Amino acid sequence: MKPWILSFHDGAAAASDRVGGPAARVAAGLPTPLGFRVESEAAASWLRDERWPDAVKDALAAAVAKMAAQTQGPLVLWVRAADVGPGAPEPLEGVGLHPGVLPALEASLGEIAAKSLWVSFLRAWGEGVIGIHATRFQRLDGVRAEASDGAALSVVATGLIDLIHSCRGSVPGDVLGQVTLAIESVWRAHGSARAKYQRRVHGVAETDGPAVEVMVLPLDGSNETRGTGTVWSRDPTTGAAGLRGSWREGGWTVADSGSVGTLPDAVVHALAPYVAGCEKLLRDGVAIRYLMSGARVWVLDARPMPRATLAAIQVAVDLANEGVIDRSEALMRVDPASLESLLRPTIAPGAIRRSIAKGLGASQGAATGRVCFTADECLAMREQREPAILVRVDASAEDIVGLGVAAGILTTRGGQTSHVAIAAREKGLPAVVSCSEITVDYTRSLLYAGDNIVGRGDWISLDGSTGDVLLGRAELVEPPGAGDALRVLLGWADSVARVAVRANADAAADAARARSFGAVGIGLCRTERMFYEPDALRALRRAILAEDGRARARALADALPLMREQFRALFSQMAGFPVTIRLLDPPLHEFLPRRPEDVASVALELGLRTETLAARVEQLAEVNPMLGLRGVRVGITRPEIYRAQVRAIFEAACQLTAEGVAVAPEILVPLVSAERELRHIRAIIVEVAEQVVAEHNVPVTYQVGTMIELPRAALLADRLAGSADFFSFGTNDLTQMVWGLSREDQGRFIPLYLAAGVLEGSPVARFDVDGVGALVRIAVEKGRAAKPRLGLGACGEHAGDPSGIAFFHDVGLDHVSCSPFRVPVARLAAAQVALGRRAAKAP
Amino acid sequence: MKPWILSFHDGAAAASDRVGGPAARVAAGLPTPLGFRVESEAAASWLRDERWPDAVKDALAAAVAKMAAQTQGPLVLWVRAADVGPGAPEPLEGVGLHPGVLPALEASLGEIAAKSLWVSFLRAWGEGVIGIHATRFQRLDGVRAEASDGAALSVVATGLIDLIHSCRGSVPGDVLGQVTLAIESVWRAHGSARAKYQRRVHGVAETDGPAVEVMVLPLDGSNETRGTGTVWSRDPTTGAAGLRGSWREGGWTVADSGSVGTLPDAVVHALAPYVAGCEKLLRDGVAIRYLMSGARVWVLDARPMPRATLAAIQVAVDLANEGVIDRSEALMRVDPASLESLLRPTIAPGAIRRSIAKGLGASQGAATGRVCFTADECLAMREQREPAILVRVDASAEDIVGLGVAAGILTTRGGQTSHVAIAAREKGLPAVVSCSEITVDYTRSLLYAGDNIVGRGDWISLDGSTGDVLLGRAELVEPPGAGDALRVLLGWADSVARVAVRANADAAADAARARSFGAVGIGLCRTERMFYEPDALRALRRAILAEDGRARARALADALPLMREQFRALFSQMAGFPVTIRLLDPPLHEFLPRRPEDVASVALELGLRTETLAARVEQLAEVNPMLGLRGVRVGITRPEIYRAQVRAIFEAACQLTAEGVAVAPEILVPLVSAERELRHIRAIIVEVAEQVVAEHNVPVTYQVGTMIELPRAALLADRLAGSADFFSFGTNDLTQMVWGLSREDQGRFIPLYLAAGVLEGSPVARFDVDGVGALVRIAVEKGRAAKPRLGLGACGEHAGDPSGIAFFHDVGLDHVSCSPFRVPVARLAAAQVALGRRAAKAP
Repeated sequence: MKPWILSFHDGAAAASDRVGGPAARVAAGLPTPLGFRVESEAAASWLRDERWPDAVKDALAAAVAKMAAQTQGPLVLWVRAADVGPGAPEPLEGVGLHPGVLPALEASLGEIAAKSLWVSFLRAWGEGVIGIHATRFQRLDGVRAEASDGAALSVVATGLIDLIHSCRGSVPGDVLGQVTLAIESVWRAHGSARAKYQRRVHGVAETDGPAVEVMVLPLDGSNETRGTGTVWSRDPTTGAAGLRGSWREGGWTVADSGSVGTLPDAVVHALAPYVAGCEKLLRDGVAIRYLMSGARVWVLDARPMPRATLAAIQVAVDLANEGVIDRSEALMRVDPASLESLLRPTIAPGAIRRSIAKGLGASQGAATGRVCFTADECLAMREQREPAILVRVDASAEDIVGLGVAAGILTTRGGQTSHVAIAAREKGLPAVVSCSEITVDYTRSLLYAGDNIVGRGDWISLDGSTGDVLLGRAELVEPPGAGDALRVLLGWADSVARVAVRANADAAADAARARSFGAVGIGLCRTERMFYEPDALRALRRAILAEDGRARARALADALPLMREQFRALFSQMAGFPVTIRLLDPPLHEFLPRRPEDVASVALELGLRTETLAARVEQLAEVNPMLGLRGVRVGITRPEIYRAQVRAIFEAACQLTAEGVAVAPEILVPLVSAERELRHIRAIIVEVAEQVVAEHNVPVTYQVGTMIELPRAALLADRLAGSADFFSFGTNDLTQMVWGLSREDQGRFIPLYLAAGVLEGSPVARFDVDGVGALVRIAVEKGRAAKPRLGLGACGEHAGDPSGIAFFHDVGLDHVSCSPFRVPVARLAAAQVALGRRAAKAP
Repeated sequence: MKPWILSFHDGAAAASDRVGGPAARVAAGLPTPLGFRVESEAAASWLRDERWPDAVKDALAAAVAKMAAQTQGPLVLWVRAADVGPGAPEPLEGVGLHPGVLPALEASLGEIAAKSLWVSFLRAWGEGVIGIHATRFQRLDGVRAEASDGAALSVVATGLIDLIHSCRGSVPGDVLGQVTLAIESVWRAHGSARAKYQRRVHGVAETDGPAVEVMVLPLDGSNETRGTGTVWSRDPTTGAAGLRGSWREGGWTVADSGSVGTLPDAVVHALAPYVAGCEKLLRDGVAIRYLMSGARVWVLDARPMPRATLAAIQVAVDLANEGVIDRSEALMRVDPASLESLLRPTIAPGAIRRSIAKGLGASQGAATGRVCFTADECLAMREQREPAILVRVDASAEDIVGLGVAAGILTTRGGQTSHVAIAAREKGLPAVVSCSEITVDYTRSLLYAGDNIVGRGDWISLDGSTGDVLLGRAELVEPPGAGDALRVLLGWADSVARVAVRANADAAADAARARSFGAVGIGLCRTERMFYEPDALRALRRAILAEDGRARARALADALPLMREQFRALFSQMAGFPVTIRLLDPPLHEFLPRRPEDVASVALELGLRTETLAARVEQLAEVNPMLGLRGVRVGITRPEIYRAQVRAIFEAACQLTAEGVAVAPEILVPLVSAERELRHIRAIIVEVAEQVVAEHNVPVTYQVGTMIELPRAALLADRLAGSADFFSFGTNDLTQMVWGLSREDQGRFIPLYLAAGVLEGSPVARFDVDGVGALVRIAVEKGRAAKPRLGLGACGEHAGDPSGIAFFHDVGLDHVSCSPFRVPVARLAAAQVALGRRAAKAP
């Protein structure tokens, strides 16, 4: 049996130590304090048998005794898990302290510093080792914060000892006794349900047990020359080359790494020679926590640099260019999800956050503006050149118009995949949704959040990442922008990824953004968005209310030039790239006004009696709109609408082709459940397309495909493939049908499910590989079997999510399509999954 | 090449003729007029080449010439398809008539009879041969109906000839020309899209083309002794043994078989000797159409008896007992769907039907009663001992109470699988739903149907089979009742069926009915129905509105004795048989009032402020209730509700077990989509069950199972099987999810789909084997693979539908469960599919 306890300075330890661990650092020449490691086998044994093997216990006693012999003054230790991953407990500082050694420590550090360390130790012992809940320390924490002399600190220490005793805990009077309990607490924490849960959530593999490090805290210097800090091998914010560091004079605790400042020369001299070697050792930028004591500099900890996204990218690209790592590794180093924050403004890190409510962060980035309750108010606010935050219970077609002129949006209902959330993400507009802590009173133009009352025109701020709603005008930081390093990295990504990344874009501005983020096409243009434009909306409303097909066609003719111009602009932006255009999808009643005041004004606009319009609205209302007259059902029952859309698409395509612009439209039919639906609509599309092409006498190549968003479409994909050139998986709707769960209504029970541990996440937010994935797999297999060259893409919200992309890669899709701001995320994620799968296959 | 034209009296013809065809009848000795058959090969050739082969044309001319030579007087013929199946045209009578032969015919038959035949021929020629649409004959049909003398009939004949000419048609002046065109019209009709559609709908296999029969109409007798009619070998209504017949003196047309009356002795003497042989030949009761001409009786047609259901059953059982057919064949002879009508009253056949609107017939049988618009009005009507018809736009929990005291129900919305339709079917209550031609004005207590205005208390009648709404008090006929023959037949059915038939029953009365119809258990008890009872509803409402779990539990405790009594009654009725009880399924807001006036009265009842209740109702409202907080989601978020239900079930089970009654509860968890949901609820069920069992100290054996009604449950059935003793397929919801189609909203587009030929039937009404079936198959395979002894049943509406039962048999389910009135249908259907599959397997 190999020894389960190894000294850092034992040659044998270096081999068994993890890269960058203390023994390895010793081997690399870094000044490391005395210490030893308890191997994970000991943890496994203890967790299994609930007792220490005798031999290990003896070895521990010997190791502690040896350290004591080699140390001058009181033995003060640091005990922690060797790997600080999800679920690992905080390090314990000051192990070994007890009333008997305090006088000696006071003599060495001074009374205040020594007693502070003692109090700090007792506090950590009580919570970490004895397991007392944090809330029970509240009173003493308050006293401690105010304590300014030794006497006050002594009172706190006594209070902490009393609390520990009252909870049937104790603080052993000997070093070995404390070390033993401290090590056990690390092991116990590792085996807890909470830690297991956290590891599962973060995707960290389970191990038998954690190795534990026990290290001397060198506390023997004078006050003047003592301090702690961190040295970074590169700038932790930007990743720029060159040493950075922090320094806290007189600091005695290592928990705080501080922020970038000026380093004492002694530290630079002591550590600079080792930094490059340390980077090679860790194959990454490094953060070295040090403690300066007298003239000596000790390295407490050397780890890969935790750093801001921008820095992560810069470091990864630089290291690859410097040959320290290869490009594949550089690609694996950056968290795709972190890229999105680079492109949006955020609330300044130091800003005062007067949070008044918390909802779901539905679209990243931050916004500040003045409260508006209607789209009209937003427009008026824009006239005054003031930013507006649109606040609504939930958002309808009327409100979507407001999105174009608001700086941010806040709703009290709806979920992260509600229409408004999706629209906000695509516009790059910060949004907080499902904020049930806020009540909106439209009549009085007020919102209530707890005791706060906010009126129209008052300033609020939204943090679309955390879901926080802040009172007042928060300070924002502009986005750092993509930068050259990101461009380089994503270029590498594209060369290894197998899944192409397109963008969801409904208008030319979105398409331009998509291109600038590197999208290689539009995977989803939702044509309904074109009808949010007032003139087009009026035409569509007249068509919806028309008595017969001819009147409907007449009404739509008014919207034709407008639609054609929108398609022209979209095609122009995406010249040379495919553009997938989905025909009208939402239920028709979504385009009609719902609120009585809107009904009245729309009726006036359309020249109808209010009662007539109200009756038609009532008639078109549905019990379950999600399962009603929408998608291809609109196309089959009101063919004039699809005909008008197809005509506009092909008129635009013909015009541009004649002008020499390369156009590749792909017409997408939504909500298909039966082969004959698709055949029926395909015939209409082909008829209109050929008619327009003949009128213009210009050839246009196009494809016709179907959404796979109903279980039946997936189950019978082989039949649909007969009438489809491509499939586009709509995982939003597919998820709703597979789970029988509406994205609008899931908020009622999913939080309770998460609380009860029945689910680990909402399937709406996280792609359900087991259920929805099984259907996608069936559809891909059946579709490709029937038509090997069938195009396959995904355009749901999950298509921009790294775990979704991994699945779509595995199942063999050609492309994913996500909101423009997610395109860089998806490109990197697509590369990572390709690399990961290649590595898994390698022998 | 075998001859394509064969005389009935040619010996070779009998071999090629179908059983019961004219040549076979000649061979059996029945007096058959001269005639010949044009074989189907000729049709196939003509349909392919659009011309007659020369040899066949010559043979036709020869056959006609030969008949003419053998016939005295004018040659008058009958031309028709040999097999009268779906899509076949009406027979053409009078072929060969033209102005040149009329005088001779008048001399033989008299002026009126001859001219009537001439007019009748021209009318049939115009529509059947020339293809003039029926509507264009309207005016002349009117004149003809009034015509009482020869002159008037001549006017009609001239009008018909003019109409035919104006449509570029003609009536050839020679027999051969007419026969040729008449035969072609039969062929053309067979090849039409309409006929193909009808054959597909009726499941009749496609053939190359129809054989055609051409036969002489013997019209040579005197007026006194001439007549036509039908002889039935058994009573066509009851199936009782013994000859029955009809006789129409002076009749000259054979299209009308007349009704049972007294037969002339001559007919009895002429045909009686042949009847038993004819039954053996056809292996069924027979209907022989005859024509008596002078002293001679001619058989025009001999076919299996078309007969009422009761007769069909009696004849099938008698023939099997007489050894003419075996029991399997007797079982195959009766249409399962026809059994349902035996158990419900119907509108008397001769009753005057003043139809004012047509909806969907949602529950068979007929009802007559006085219009009521609320449940309270129904109650008041019952006090007056008058039957009530409840009329609603759609039905809510409030209205369901009314179902118990109404004689029938009429709604203007909702579909055939709406809650009210299902409830009505299970109560055996006639219902017409989705009757959009009717507008209900609650304020004035009036309903409008076209020009008709019907007020509260006025009499209307409903035909739940056809969907007709009739003004006034229609005469009803009581149901004939099951009868001994049906009992015998269903006994035979049970001995061959592999799928057992249970019933859906929510209360003891339904269970009693289910047992009387032979259900071997309850496959679905919907516990929500128990809460339609006012006291229980009040308790549930208090629980829904409770602030926390304890208040919720307290509120439900009030309903416990009531629930326990209901379960006791149910278990007692089903002693010795399994009872599957589904825990609460609907969204909670379904139990709260919706209409403002109801909110006010319920608030008063619960001691709440109206605004408070209105706010809570608003809060619980959902955008897509079908996809919201219901089923197991209620159980997980409000466990007190399921706990109370499970306690009531087991208290009842323990009490009865102690009394010596055999009880076998099966607890069914609805709307499960993830394994952990089921495990979570199963743990609660087991905990409460064991607690109650311990309190009573009586052992109760029970099972816990899950509904498979969401696609995800089907896709991951292997995992669910781990926590389930049985699965119950809920094909209603599964269909809605697979198609993304709400049963409430599908009425908006499905009719247009059917009209456009995009679908052949609503998937809600007809089991979708391809899509929904694929998921069921996956679930069965995965479930059984994980747990071979897993119980499998189906309880959706399709479970009572013969095509659904065939699928469930094929896929290997243990039982189906349907409404009590459908149990006989399902038992017979289950036997038929078992026999059909056995026959298909036999060599």
